[in-house]
Amino acid sequence: MAGNTFGNIYRLTSFGESHGSAMGGIIDGMPAGIDIDLDEVQRVVDRRRPGQTEGASARQEMDRVEVLSGIFNGKTLGTPIGFVVRNEDCRSEDYDHLKDVFRPSHADYTWQMKYGVRDHRGGGRASARETLCRVVAGAFAMQALKTIGIEVIAAARQMEEQIKQAKAEGDTVGGCVSCSITGVPVGLGEPVFGKLNAQLAAAMMSIPAAKSFDMGAGRALTSMRGSESLDTMRMVDGEVRFERNFSGGIQGGISNGNEIYFEVGFKPIATLMRDIPSIDTQGREVTIHPRGRHDVSAVPRAVPVVQAMAAIVILDNYLLNKTTHL
Amino acid sequence: MAGNTFGNIYRLTSFGESHGSAMGGIIDGMPAGIDIDLDEVQRVVDRRRPGQTEGASARQEMDRVEVLSGIFNGKTLGTPIGFVVRNEDCRSEDYDHLKDVFRPSHADYTWQMKYGVRDHRGGGRASARETLCRVVAGAFAMQALKTIGIEVIAAARQMEEQIKQAKAEGDTVGGCVSCSITGVPVGLGEPVFGKLNAQLAAAMMSIPAAKSFDMGAGRALTSMRGSESLDTMRMVDGEVRFERNFSGGIQGGISNGNEIYFEVGFKPIATLMRDIPSIDTQGREVTIHPRGRHDVSAVPRAVPVVQAMAAIVILDNYLLNKTTHL
Amino acid sequence: MAGNTFGNIYRLTSFGESHGSAMGGIIDGMPAGIDIDLDEVQRVVDRRRPGQTEGASARQEMDRVEVLSGIFNGKTLGTPIGFVVRNEDCRSEDYDHLKDVFRPSHADYTWQMKYGVRDHRGGGRASARETLCRVVAGAFAMQALKTIGIEVIAAARQMEEQIKQAKAEGDTVGGCVSCSITGVPVGLGEPVFGKLNAQLAAAMMSIPAAKSFDMGAGRALTSMRGSESLDTMRMVDGEVRFERNFSGGIQGGISNGNEIYFEVGFKPIATLMRDIPSIDTQGREVTIHPRGRHDVSAVPRAVPVVQAMAAIVILDNYLLNKTTHL
Amino acid sequence: MAGNTFGNIYRLTSFGESHGSAMGGIIDGMPAGIDIDLDEVQRVVDRRRPGQTEGASARQEMDRVEVLSGIFNGKTLGTPIGFVVRNEDCRSEDYDHLKDVFRPSHADYTWQMKYGVRDHRGGGRASARETLCRVVAGAFAMQALKTIGIEVIAAARQMEEQIKQAKAEGDTVGGCVSCSITGVPVGLGEPVFGKLNAQLAAAMMSIPAAKSFDMGAGRALTSMRGSESLDTMRMVDGEVRFERNFSGGIQGGISNGNEIYFEVGFKPIATLMRDIPSIDTQGREVTIHPRGRHDVSAVPRAVPVVQAMAAIVILDNYLLNKTTHL
Repeated sequence: MAGNTFGNIYRLTSFGESHGSAMGGIIDGMPAGIDIDLDEVQRVVDRRRPGQTEGASARQEMDRVEVLSGIFNGKTLGTPIGFVVRNEDCRSEDYDHLKDVFRPSHADYTWQMKYGVRDHRGGGRASARETLCRVVAGAFAMQALKTIGIEVIAAARQMEEQIKQAKAEGDTVGGCVSCSITGVPVGLGEPVFGKLNAQLAAAMMSIPAAKSFDMGAGRALTSMRGSESLDTMRMVDGEVRFERNFSGGIQGGISNGNEIYFEVGFKPIATLMRDIPSIDTQGREVTIHPRGRHDVSAVPRAVPVVQAMAAIVILDNYLLNKTTHL
Repeated sequence: MAGNTFGNIYRLTSFGESHGSAMGGIIDGMPAGIDIDLDEVQRVVDRRRPGQTEGASARQEMDRVEVLSGIFNGKTLGTPIGFVVRNEDCRSEDYDHLKDVFRPSHADYTWQMKYGVRDHRGGGRASARETLCRVVAGAFAMQALKTIGIEVIAAARQMEEQIKQAKAEGDTVGGCVSCSITGVPVGLGEPVFGKLNAQLAAAMMSIPAAKSFDMGAGRALTSMRGSESLDTMRMVDGEVRFERNFSGGIQGGISNGNEIYFEVGFKPIATLMRDIPSIDTQGREVTIHPRGRHDVSAVPRAVPVVQAMAAIVILDNYLLNKTTHL
Repeated sequence: MAGNTFGNIYRLTSFGESHGSAMGGIIDGMPAGIDIDLDEVQRVVDRRRPGQTEGASARQEMDRVEVLSGIFNGKTLGTPIGFVVRNEDCRSEDYDHLKDVFRPSHADYTWQMKYGVRDHRGGGRASARETLCRVVAGAFAMQALKTIGIEVIAAARQMEEQIKQAKAEGDTVGGCVSCSITGVPVGLGEPVFGKLNAQLAAAMMSIPAAKSFDMGAGRALTSMRGSESLDTMRMVDGEVRFERNFSGGIQGGISNGNEIYFEVGFKPIATLMRDIPSIDTQGREVTIHPRGRHDVSAVPRAVPVVQAMAAIVILDNYLLNKTTHL
Repeated sequence: MAGNTFGNIYRLTSFGESHGSAMGGIIDGMPAGIDIDLDEVQRVVDRRRPGQTEGASARQEMDRVEVLSGIFNGKTLGTPIGFVVRNEDCRSEDYDHLKDVFRPSHADYTWQMKYGVRDHRGGGRASARETLCRVVAGAFAMQALKTIGIEVIAAARQMEEQIKQAKAEGDTVGGCVSCSITGVPVGLGEPVFGKLNAQLAAAMMSIPAAKSFDMGAGRALTSMRGSESLDTMRMVDGEVRFERNFSGGIQGGISNGNEIYFEVGFKPIATLMRDIPSIDTQGREVTIHPRGRHDVSAVPRAVPVVQAMAAIVILDNYLLNKTTHL
C-alpha cells in the first residue's frame, strides 16, 4: 500500500490529477526549527515548469506553490507541511478525443484495467504533472540538507539539437539524467533491504518514463575484472581517501563519505505528433491524432525531479541514521 | 526503518550473520490455505548453495531449511512462517586476519563507521549469505504464484569460460542476470511511488553487488526515437495484443498482461586471490592476503536470488491489488 | 514515524495548525468506482462544527470541505483524495497572551520541549481542530461502508444539564462516547499485533482528550467470573447466534459478525474560564486569564470524531482482509 | 498488513503456533553497541513461565531462549536479533477433542472463518503463548532503556485468594494490571495519530484477553470537573514540577517528564473446568468438556507482558524522537 507515500521518516504523500482542481501534498517528518525560504522553494519549482526550454509543452501554468501549514515565523514547526498548486490552464476539451482510446506505451490501458475508471484528461493521475509535488518536497529537503553541508546536483547531457530535430519530425527522444550528491557523511543506508542504493533506485524508477538505473559506474562494472574495479583506500593527511569511486559512494548499502552518483535513463515521450494506430475501450482498432501540449523529451523536466527525489532519499536516511545509536 | 523487512502484504523479515549461529526469517502475509511442498522449498534453496558450479566458493553447507510455523497439515495457516537455517561450516578463524582491516569495495569500512561495531567474520550481516533467506521466501512465493499461473524465471548469460579464466588469474568477474515473469494479470503495481518497476528496482538493487537495473528494453530505450519505441496494441481474435514489449510488461507503473522482463547488472566480486592494498581500523596502510572461500563471480548464485525477489514482489502486488476494489 | 498518517490500506494523512491557512488531508487507498455524494460529506462535517450545541465554542467557521482530487464524474478513481478546509475565523490576537505561557494539562509545555518551537495560536497543531480532517476521511469511509451494509453510530450520554451548569461556573466537564458498528462480516482484524480491538484502541486514544477505552463490556469484565462472561453460541435457523456479546463483537482480535461496540472516556476540557496558575517559558510562575472561544466539554464534538475513526478502521480492515486469501 | 510486526524503529516480528515446533521472533532496529546480558533476558522470560504461581497452567516448558544473531562479543551489532524458543511439552492429543468445535469467547470461530483453516492445538497462533516473544523483545528493550535511566514496572493487584477460590469451583477470574514508567524524558510521542498514549493503548489492547485501557487517571477523569483535573505546574528549585499527574505523564500525546502510568483490564480466562455448551464446525450444538492445562486468570502471566510491551513502545519512541531535529 502507500502507493502515494514515499519515504520512511521524511515522507511525501501527494495527490492530484493533471486536469483536476489542484495538485498537492503533505510532507511529514520535516525536522523542527529549520529556516525556510519559501521564495527559494518557488524558484526550484519554476525550474521544472513547462515552456521553459525548447521542446517543452506549451502549457502555461504559474504553478504557484501555496504552503498551508508547518511553517511559522519562517521556521519549520516539526508538523506536517501541507501544500497545494492549482491547475490553472486546463483545456480539458483537448482530451475529449482520448476519452475512449488507449494510447500505446501510456498508462491508459493499464489504469483502466486496474481501476475500472479513470480521468482521461491529460493522463489524469498518471500524468508527469504529479512530479511537481516531488519537486516541492525536494526543495524543502534541499534547504534542510544545505544546513548540514549536503548538496544534490542533477544534469542532463546536452541534447537540444536532437530535441529540435525530433520535434521537426513530429517525433520524440529519450535520454539520461546524471545525479551527484556531495557532503554525505559515512553511514547512511539501512541494510539489508533498505540499502541506500536500493532506496535511490526505487525513487528514480518511480519517475514517469524512467527505464534504467546505474549506480556509480553501473553497468560498466559488469564487464570489468575485479582487479580493475576496486575502490582502494589510502590514508592522506590522516584522512581516509578512496582512490577510485566506481561504487558511486555506497558500499554494502551504506554511504562511504565519497560523492554519491548515479544515472537514470528515460524512454522517449510516448505521445508523437503523428498518426498512431491503437485500440479503443470497445476493442476496436483506431488511429489516434494527437492534440494538446506535449514535451518532445522527458529529460529536461526530469532533471529537477531526479534532484528532488535524491534529496528526499538522502534527508530521510540522514534522519533514519540517527536511530542507529541510543 | 525496516531495513530488514521487505514487502507490503507478503513481507519477509530476515536475520543472521554469516558466521553466527543461524540465518533465518519470518514470512508474514502468506495467504491461507495454500498447499506447500516443503521438499520443493529445499530444492530451490539447494540450487543457491555454494560449491555447485565452477567458480563458486568451496564452503560446504547443507543449508537445511527448518520451517517452524505457519504450515499445518501441508497447508499455509495464514500465520507467519518462521524458518531457520543453521550455519554449520563456519571456520571463523579464517577471518581473524580481517578483524582490523577494511577490504576495499566491501562493506567493512561503512559498517564499522555506521555501527561502531561489526562481526568481521565472513562479512557478518553484510555477507551475501543473507540472500539465503530471500530464496526461502521466494520459494514459498513461487508455490503460491504457481496456483494462479504465474511463473518467474531468471537466467545468466553463459560465462563459465570467463569465470574459469579469471579464477586462474586470481581475479573475479561481474555479469548480468535476466528475469522473465509470465502469466501476470493486468493491474499489478501501485502508482505513483509504488510503481511495479520501482518495487522491482528496489528489490533487485538490494541484492549484494547489484549495480544496474534495466526495465524492459531499459537503457536501449534512451537512444531510441519515440516512433521506434511504442508498444502498439492490436486486437487479435477479440483479445488485446501488444505488437512489441519494449516496456517490459509495465506501463504507468502497472502490469499490462505482457511478459515482465528486466536485467540486473552485478559488479565483480571484491575479494581477489591477490595482494590488495588497503587500510586498517587504526588508519595504517596494510596489504591484505585473502584467505577463506570466495566465489569468482556473484552471478551464478545471484540467479535464484533475482528469481526469489521477483516472486516476492509479484505475489505482494497481487495481494495488494485485491484492495483496489471494495 | 508517520505521526500524521493513520491506517494501513485506507490511509489518512493530515496537516494543519488551528490558526494557520488551512487544515487538510490526503486519503490514500480509497477503492475505485465508489459513488460519492460530496454534499453528504459536507453534512457530516457540519455536524462537527462549533457553535452547534450548548457549551460549544462560539468560533464561527464555515468549514467548507474542498475536494481537490480523486473523484471524477461522481465516482472515486482509486487515486488519492486531497482536500482542504480553510481556517477563516482566526482571531489570532486572542492568543497573544498565551505566546509565552504553558497552560496546564495542555500540549503547550510538551510540544515546546519536543520541537523547540511551536505555533501558540489556538493550540496550533495540537488543537482539536485537526479532528476535522478525521471527520472528512470518516465521511468518505462511511459512504464506502454503506455499500456493503456496514453502519457506524456514535452517541454521547445526555449531559446538557451538566454542561450548562459547568459553563455557568466557568468550569468544564468530561464524559463518554459510545460507538456501535453493525453489519461487520466475520474475519476483520490482523493478529497478533493488528487485532481489530488494538487498532480501534489506537484510533480512539489518538483523539484529543481521550483517556480510557473499553472494548465490549470492557472494564466490567475484569470483575466477572468466567462462567458469567462467556459469549456462548447456538444455532438458530441454521445460523450461528451469540447469546451474549460481552466481547463487543471481536474474539481473538477478529470480528465475529456481532455488533462491535466500545466506549471512549474523555477528560474535561483543560481551558477554564477562571484564573489558572501556571508557569511561562522563562520559568516564571504566572496566572493565566483565559480568553478566546472554548468548549465546555469535548464530548459533543468528539461524537462524530469517534464515529469517523471507527469507520476508517473498519474500512481499512475490510480491505486488508481481502489479502487473507489468494 | 504487518499483523505480526509491532513498532516503528524498534520492531518486533514474531511467529509460532502454541503446539508447533517453536515460537520465535526478530527484533529489528536495536541500537548498536548496547551491552547485553543474555542471562538476564532468560530470567525475565522465566518470570512469565507457566507453573510459577497458584492458578497457572501446569504445562512445563523450559522456554529456553536461543539468540541466533545480532549480538557479538556481548554487544548489539545494530543488526536484527533473531531468537527461537522450542515448544517442548506439547501434548497435542489433549486437543484432539477440540479439532472440530468452537469454544465460546475464544478465537476458534473467528480464526476458522477468517482463514478457512487453523491449528486447533492449544489455540494455535491465537494462544497466549505468543506473548513469550513479546517478553523477549521487552527484555532486550529494558536493557537498552536501563542505560538511559528509564525503568518500567508492572504490577497486578493481589488476587491469590480470588484465584484459589475460582479454581476450586472450576471457574476463572479477570483482573487488572497497572504499569508505571519512570525516567522518561520530555518529548516522546508523535502527534497526531502516533500519540504516545495511542501507541501504548494499541500495544496493551493487542495482548490476549485485554478489554480496557485507562491512561493516567483514565475513566475517573470522565466524571471530574476541569477545575479538579488540571495537572498544574510550578517551579521548584528552578525545575518544572507538576503538582498532580492525572494525565499519566502524557499531554498532547507527548511525554511531559512525569511518571507514565496506565492500567489494563483483562477478562476472565474463557476456558472453564466445566461443561460448556457450544457449536461445532458442522453447525451442531455440542457440550465441551475442557481438558489440557489452563490458567485460572490471565493476570499473573500478563504482568511481564504488559511490562514488555511498554518497554518496546518507550524505546521505539525514544529512538523515533531522535529524528525530531536535524
